[in-house]
Amino acid sequence: MEFKIEKKLKNSLGRAGILKTPHGEIKTPSFVAVGTKATVKSLNPEQVKDAGTQVVLGNTYHLFLQPGDEIVRDAGGIGKFMNWKGPTMTDSGGFQVFSLGAAYGKDISKITKITDPSLMIPERFDDNDAPRLAKIGNDGVSFKSHLDGSIHYITPEKSIEIQHNLGADIIFAFDECTSPTEDIKYQEEALERTHRWAERSLVEHLKLGGGQALFGIVQGGREKKLRQESAKVISSMDFDGFGIGGSFAKEDMSSAVKWVNEILPEEKPRHLLGIGEPEDLFMGIENGIDLFDCVLPTRLGRNGTIYTNRGKISITNKKFRDDYSPIEKDCGCYSCQNYTKAYIAHLFHGKEMLAGTLASIHNLYFIVHLVDNIRQSILDDNFFEYKKEFLSKYIV
Amino acid sequence: MEFKIEKKLKNSLGRAGILKTPHGEIKTPSFVAVGTKATVKSLNPEQVKDAGTQVVLGNTYHLFLQPGDEIVRDAGGIGKFMNWKGPTMTDSGGFQVFSLGAAYGKDISKITKITDPSLMIPERFDDNDAPRLAKIGNDGVSFKSHLDGSIHYITPEKSIEIQHNLGADIIFAFDECTSPTEDIKYQEEALERTHRWAERSLVEHLKLGGGQALFGIVQGGREKKLRQESAKVISSMDFDGFGIGGSFAKEDMSSAVKWVNEILPEEKPRHLLGIGEPEDLFMGIENGIDLFDCVLPTRLGRNGTIYTNRGKISITNKKFRDDYSPIEKDCGCYSCQNYTKAYIAHLFHGKEMLAGTLASIHNLYFIVHLVDNIRQSILDDNFFEYKKEFLSKYIV
Repeated sequence: MEFKIEKKLKNSLGRAGILKTPHGEIKTPSFVAVGTKATVKSLNPEQVKDAGTQVVLGNTYHLFLQPGDEIVRDAGGIGKFMNWKGPTMTDSGGFQVFSLGAAYGKDISKITKITDPSLMIPERFDDNDAPRLAKIGNDGVSFKSHLDGSIHYITPEKSIEIQHNLGADIIFAFDECTSPTEDIKYQEEALERTHRWAERSLVEHLKLGGGQALFGIVQGGREKKLRQESAKVISSMDFDGFGIGGSFAKEDMSSAVKWVNEILPEEKPRHLLGIGEPEDLFMGIENGIDLFDCVLPTRLGRNGTIYTNRGKISITNKKFRDDYSPIEKDCGCYSCQNYTKAYIAHLFHGKEMLAGTLASIHNLYFIVHLVDNIRQSILDDNFFEYKKEFLSKYIV
Repeated sequence: MEFKIEKKLKNSLGRAGILKTPHGEIKTPSFVAVGTKATVKSLNPEQVKDAGTQVVLGNTYHLFLQPGDEIVRDAGGIGKFMNWKGPTMTDSGGFQVFSLGAAYGKDISKITKITDPSLMIPERFDDNDAPRLAKIGNDGVSFKSHLDGSIHYITPEKSIEIQHNLGADIIFAFDECTSPTEDIKYQEEALERTHRWAERSLVEHLKLGGGQALFGIVQGGREKKLRQESAKVISSMDFDGFGIGGSFAKEDMSSAVKWVNEILPEEKPRHLLGIGEPEDLFMGIENGIDLFDCVLPTRLGRNGTIYTNRGKISITNKKFRDDYSPIEKDCGCYSCQNYTKAYIAHLFHGKEMLAGTLASIHNLYFIVHLVDNIRQSILDDNFFEYKKEFLSKYIV
C-alpha cells in the first residue's frame, strides 16, 4: 500500500492525498461506505459505485458469525463475494467489544451524550448480572452470538485470522472501544489492553503474511494524556496506517482527533472510525483525517431521513406527499435525477423496499460527494471558505 | 392501440403478435410485471427493464388508497410517477372485490384448491358477520381500507375515473372475480353484475375520452355455459381487448381459457389475469393468451424461492451455503452473471434487502424470458417441441 500526500492545508493538519491499494486508488479524504454483512444495505455494488463510493468496509464480527469467514475466503474474499471490484476494508470487531459489551442495551453508540458523567459509567465487565453479549477477559473477548446464542472467544490473533480470511485490502488491529463516560482508571486499563492487542495483532498479521495493509487503532477516551500516549505507542509499531477509535462525546471529538494527529506520522493514512455527520467530516479533515466510515447514510435513509444542503429532512412529512420536485434540485444522484419527493414519500408510506434504496442512494451520494468537495477545496486552497459556506446553510 | 398477429400456431388458438401502445410496442405473448403500488417490489425500473420486462401493471385499488389517484395524475400518470418509460396497465379493482370480500382471510387466491366444493362455498356478501373488507352492493362495492379503516364505495364509473387519473396505456373494466367453489346460482348473479359493470365501465370510459385502451373482463367460473356466455356478451361490446378473470381450480383453467378464446374475436389481445406459473404460461399461450401478469416472480423471490429450469428451489437450503456457482449457469440475468448461490443464501440468512432484489431479478428474468422463448418457438414453428422439452425437465 502506498500513500501520497498531494496537498496540505495551511495552518492545520488537513491534507488531500492518494492511497493506492491492490484494488485501486482511493482519493483522500474519502468516505467509506459501510457494508456490514458484505452488502451496503439496500444497494447493489453498481449503486454504491454510482453514488461515488471508492471503498467499502465490512464488519469482521458480523461476517465471522454469518456466513463465516471461511465461506468468504473460499468465495475469493469479501470483494469477490459481494461483487465489489474496488478497495475494501474490514474493522476488527473491537467496536463490538463496546456495543455488545459496556454499551449493550444502552442508548450510546459512536457519539455518547455526557450529562453527569459520574452517573453514566456503564457497569464493568466483571458485573455478571449486566445484560450484555460481550465480556472482556485477559486475553480477548467472549461474545455471545445474537443469532444463535453460541459463545465465541475473539483474541487479537483470531481477529487477524478472520480478517485474513475475509481478505480486505485494509484491515484493523483488535482493540477495545470505550465510552467517554468511563473513569480514568478504566480508560488506562482498557488502553493498556488495546496496546497489547495492537502488538499481538501486528505479530499475527506478519506471521500470516500476504498483501493486506494493517492499521493500528488509537484509543484513550477523552483524556489528552491517554490519547497522546496511545498515539505514541501505536505509531511506534509498524502499522500501515491508523484508525482513531472510541465512542466520543461530540464536544470532545475535535480535540481528541487533533491531539492524536499531531503525533501520528504524517506520511501514513488516518481513519476516523464510525464517524460521518457533515459537521464532523469538516472537523475531521481539518484535523488531518483521511478516511471516514459511517452507517448513517444508509441507516437514516432506510428510516426516511434524508440529507440536504439545509439539513436533514423527514421524507414522510405530510408536506412532501404532493411535492413533485426532487429531494435536491442540483443533486446529481440517481434518486434526484429520476424521482420526485412525492414518489419517494409514497414508497415510504407504502413500506416499499425501493423507498430505502432511493433514500440510501441519495444519502450516500450526498456524504461521499461532500467529502469529495472538501478534498477539492483543499486542492483549490479554499477549504475554510467552503466550510463556512456549507455550514452556514446546513442546520445540524 | 393496434394489435397485429404475426404468426398463428397450427391446430391451436396460440399466436405471436405485436401490440402497439402510446409508450411502445409489446411483443406478445408477453409477461407483465406487477407493480402494485407503482413499484415492482424491491426493483427499480432499470432492473425491471433489464430483466426483459416490456410492460408493468399497477393495482387501481392500492393506488387509489395510497398515494391517491389524483397524486398520480398530477405527477403525470403512473409511468412518469414511477419512472417507467414503457407501456403500463392498471387492473380495475375487481380482483380485490374477491380477495377482500368472499376470499378474505381464507387461503384462496388466483388458484383455488377444490376438494369437496359443497363444503367450501364462501359466505355470501349479505353475511354481515363474515370478516371481510369488501361488500358487494347493487351498484358497486364498498371497501374498508386496510390502511385506516375508511370506507370507499367503488362503482364501475369510479374505477374508470381512477384509472383515467392513473393514466396507464391499458385499463380494465370493473368486474367481480369469483371462486370456483361458488354454486351456479351465485356465478350467474355475479356474471350478470360483471356484464352490467362492463357496459357501465365502457360508457364512462368513452365519456371521459383520451387515448387509453379499455379491456373488458370475461368471468363465469368453472361453468362452460357461463364462460361462453360471458365471452359472447363481453366481445359484443366495443372493448380494445379482453381480460380473462376468475379464481381458478388449476384443473379448470385450460378448458375455461379455451372456451373463452374460441369465442373472443381473434384480432384483439387477450390477457389472462393474475396467472404466471411456467406450466400455466404454456397452457395459456397454446390456448390463445397474449398477456399474463402475476406477482409470483417477485413474491416468491422475496421469500427465497427461486425458479430454475428444473423447478423451484429454496435458496435458504443448507446445501447452498457454500455453493459458489450461480443459480443457473446459463442464465443471462444480472443476479446469475454476478453472484453465487452462497452469496444470495447469505443475504437471505442475514435478512438483507439485497436478497429479495437479487432473487426477484432472477425470477422475473426467468419468467419473462420463458414467455419470450415460447413466443420465439411459435415464430419458429416448434412450440410443441419446446413445450415438451421444457416441461420434461421442469418439476412442478
